[in-house]
Amino acid sequence: MTESVSWTASQRPDGLGRRALEEIDHAECLRLISPSGVGRIAFTGRFGPMVLAVGYMLHEGTIVFLTAQDGTTEEDLRTGIAHAEFKVAFEIDEFDVDERVGWSVMVQGAVHHVDSAAERSALLNAGVKAWPEGAREHFIRITPTMISGRRICHR
Amino acid sequence: MTESVSWTASQRPDGLGRRALEEIDHAECLRLISPSGVGRIAFTGRFGPMVLAVGYMLHEGTIVFLTAQDGTTEEDLRTGIAHAEFKVAFEIDEFDVDERVGWSVMVQGAVHHVDSAAERSALLNAGVKAWPEGAREHFIRITPTMISGRRICHR
Repeated sequence: MTESVSWTASQRPDGLGRRALEEIDHAECLRLISPSGVGRIAFTGRFGPMVLAVGYMLHEGTIVFLTAQDGTTEEDLRTGIAHAEFKVAFEIDEFDVDERVGWSVMVQGAVHHVDSAAERSALLNAGVKAWPEGAREHFIRITPTMISGRRICHR
Repeated sequence: MTESVSWTASQRPDGLGRRALEEIDHAECLRLISPSGVGRIAFTGRFGPMVLAVGYMLHEGTIVFLTAQDGTTEEDLRTGIAHAEFKVAFEIDEFDVDERVGWSVMVQGAVHHVDSAAERSALLNAGVKAWPEGAREHFIRITPTMISGRRICHR
């Protein structure tokens, strides 16, 4: 898997030196994404490829976030077939633009809709809530089947 | 189109007040993404949905970045049919996690591979270069067909 990071010459003063791209191992990927934060969910929706920023929480090894009940994102993430789960990718990163260093982690996995009251209540107790409060009431969980990461660092 | 941003209760002290979600108009989306920066490209590759961080530059209304010649990303982004372009989504955002505010912009469009020497030379002159220097030699351009954005702000 390749990842590319380009930049404009004006932001690359020669004094900064060269950068190398390294793979991040599984344990370190999990450590990097374990604080709650903003990630991006990517999937193919009714209008083609989509990528949306969401605030997530890592809970029992799964990525959990809230979306609007009956919203287009929620509908897009259902296959319409019982027990058939939608496949998505989820990305979290942190870059220092001035230093031209940073990391990104990609999780691939299946979307699970939290439709049972017991599971919903467990997540509410774990503290997952929405930023824009109100109608955003639907919990989505991504169970990772693959996690990979890359780091750009000083050579 | 809905976007969801969830957060843990511990990071939402009551004193911070409520947040609202607003659409960002086309002109403001372009203004927000016009400085070069890090974005995320999303597409369906051979291993399912993918989302990768890339350093991009906005050049003549298109998103331009570099990837490795003959890399898997480059291969994934080719349809194999002449003049048939691969559809992708591209996301750029900026969030203040402490304040729980920020914005994200999504561009949807077709991938154009810069295979001609003249176009390649124009982009090199415009200053697009790779962070990890070396074999990353293939320019990719996304021509937007749709741009949308959302902002989370103090109510």
